Amino acid sequence: MRLSFSAAACAALVYAGTAGALDQIVEKKSFSMAAYTTVGGQSIKDVRIGYETYGRLNDAKDNAILVPHFFSGNSHVAGKYKPEDKAAGYWDSIVGPGRPLDTDKYFIIGVDSLCNINTRDGVTVTTGPASINPDTGKPYAMQFPEVQVRDFVNVQKALVDSLGIHKLHAVMGLSMGGLQSWEWAAAYPDAVARLIAVVSGPVAPPYLIAQLQSWADAIKLDPKWNGGDYYGKGDPIDGLTLAFKMINLASRQPEWADAQFGRKPADPSRDPAAGYGNLYAVEKWMDDASLGRAKSVDANSVICLVRANQLHQAGGKATEEDGLAQIKAKVLIIPDEHDVLLFPEYERKARDILKSQGKRVEYLELHGPNGHLDSITGISQVSDAISRFLNSE
Amino acid sequence: MRLSFSAAACAALVYAGTAGALDQIVEKKSFSMAAYTTVGGQSIKDVRIGYETYGRLNDAKDNAILVPHFFSGNSHVAGKYKPEDKAAGYWDSIVGPGRPLDTDKYFIIGVDSLCNINTRDGVTVTTGPASINPDTGKPYAMQFPEVQVRDFVNVQKALVDSLGIHKLHAVMGLSMGGLQSWEWAAAYPDAVARLIAVVSGPVAPPYLIAQLQSWADAIKLDPKWNGGDYYGKGDPIDGLTLAFKMINLASRQPEWADAQFGRKPADPSRDPAAGYGNLYAVEKWMDDASLGRAKSVDANSVICLVRANQLHQAGGKATEEDGLAQIKAKVLIIPDEHDVLLFPEYERKARDILKSQGKRVEYLELHGPNGHLDSITGISQVSDAISRFLNSE
Repeated sequence: MRLSFSAAACAALVYAGTAGALDQIVEKKSFSMAAYTTVGGQSIKDVRIGYETYGRLNDAKDNAILVPHFFSGNSHVAGKYKPEDKAAGYWDSIVGPGRPLDTDKYFIIGVDSLCNINTRDGVTVTTGPASINPDTGKPYAMQFPEVQVRDFVNVQKALVDSLGIHKLHAVMGLSMGGLQSWEWAAAYPDAVARLIAVVSGPVAPPYLIAQLQSWADAIKLDPKWNGGDYYGKGDPIDGLTLAFKMINLASRQPEWADAQFGRKPADPSRDPAAGYGNLYAVEKWMDDASLGRAKSVDANSVICLVRANQLHQAGGKATEEDGLAQIKAKVLIIPDEHDVLLFPEYERKARDILKSQGKRVEYLELHGPNGHLDSITGISQVSDAISRFLNSE
Repeated sequence: MRLSFSAAACAALVYAGTAGALDQIVEKKSFSMAAYTTVGGQSIKDVRIGYETYGRLNDAKDNAILVPHFFSGNSHVAGKYKPEDKAAGYWDSIVGPGRPLDTDKYFIIGVDSLCNINTRDGVTVTTGPASINPDTGKPYAMQFPEVQVRDFVNVQKALVDSLGIHKLHAVMGLSMGGLQSWEWAAAYPDAVARLIAVVSGPVAPPYLIAQLQSWADAIKLDPKWNGGDYYGKGDPIDGLTLAFKMINLASRQPEWADAQFGRKPADPSRDPAAGYGNLYAVEKWMDDASLGRAKSVDANSVICLVRANQLHQAGGKATEEDGLAQIKAKVLIIPDEHDVLLFPEYERKARDILKSQGKRVEYLELHGPNGHLDSITGISQVSDAISRFLNSE
């Protein structure tokens, strides 16, 4: 069996075992603002983000759970858009009647972020470098304002306000979705009752900053990137492919490669010892999966997200302690034991700070062969903990 | 304090605390073979590798310890070539009278490998893609035969034979130096009495194969690489710089970046939130250190080493078990607790296999902030264990 990179396909692996978790056709919606001013003080006109909902908002409007997405994801948390869709949303296994994100109780909102990289999938609605700048009639490219996770959250806050929701039952996300969740709880403490941060911490540590830098550097190394001016001229596919190789590796862990490939050659008749063109199976998968992903995304948007992730410091305070001090939500932290992208040491540190501040915090670890991506493929192992946490006062 | 990438500088950090470990001026020597036929069956004329020695070979010629080098290193294990050298060799802290690699007892041989990447340092002696092909009068470039770790070992074996040494007291190395040490013990079981493998395992696991692939891909993405035909035309410095960013990160671990940089900007007056050109301190270090290293190496030689490391399977058998079954040496395995390049899980597996085969094996872990590079900066913490192991029967 081969593991495909795409989140949709990862979710499909889960879906196969838990068919019908959210047996529902979902509708993608769009939210727009005439203008938004970034934390950095720059104005963006006609800001749009997509979202989708599962379950029903109650009359008190206090049963909403917001789910921002991870780096390469979008709002599609659960369900299918059309019956013939190959895969359901990435967390379909934990969404639905009787599931942790119980659609009989909760109103779940999956939401797109600014600078979403999936500008070509026909579904994602976002505003970012690939969007047309109304002032020029051309894509912003690298002139798109440098945005922060707080900006993602601020636009989502406007969406949530527009739905008449004053306090979210919970904000929950994995990886960059978790970064946004931390930011929500620190930026809008009175609007977040519960925070569930999966494989994510409140601050981007410097090692992560450096990892992210290399992803952007790979894109910039491709001559086709051309300073960001590639629209209509041919995408920097080779640079993006290398960036996704790094992403693919960092979001998994060695056990994954052992289980999927071992040291098998891609073609048994072509020994890697007999020519540089003869690949190992893991190299062939890296080539194919990364190229496939590269073709579906916008390069400048990857660079935009890289910077937003580097800048992540929940609450925007000078120290992690000061940022966390702002949080009023009850917190559930779920790192992965073998995560080599967002190392669990940082979540343990956040837990300890919150505890020392007298806040309510729970902590448990994911296990499994996929490292960071256990947060999708192995999320069911923490279903009970999530259910209990969401149902608690 | 800033940590420089170069092995020499890393060793200098140690050296400062243990000055005079090997208070000796060492001489770089050269060994040559008129021709060598690779494991893959290709003949290379006029093969040369460099080496240097510390201590004195005894009359029985049974006190030699061979030390092959890591990926970016060379034969310079200890001492200085000139009194004014800024740094001593990388393991200077454990070499010298009364030190674990005791020059009063042992004859230590530091040796260069084929395809050594440091072709421009004026010291390294190697045969690889940058060497002149006697048949064409031009550099081999990517026509240099695809070589394996076994080839490195075979050429070293010829050197050792030339010195009249039939059995090495020990072979010891870190990282790629450890891969070569494993190969020595499996390929020439009667010639190796002791094996000390630091941050290295007997087999390159598929996750490492994929990491290595990305290093080579970064070089190939640079248009100046030009299929390997760049000699005299300008090196693929940008591609090499990105490759060294990946190497720099993978050979360290998050705690290193926390301790060295935190989230500080490179320039306090230039906030990373205010412009893509405004870097974090860790990004600036990555840029500078990686560029510095890139300028000093040969790109095709990096690609050559990448493939040799991918092909690594000690003993060249179908399974790890069969490879290890050939070993007669007593084995000391020293992984690093937080290694994210050569994960300690694989060394534990090798230990367990050796134990199950009834072989003599010891195991202990390095600790410290530098991950894989604790094998240089923190090697003194296992000095006693190395001394005991080398002095044991």
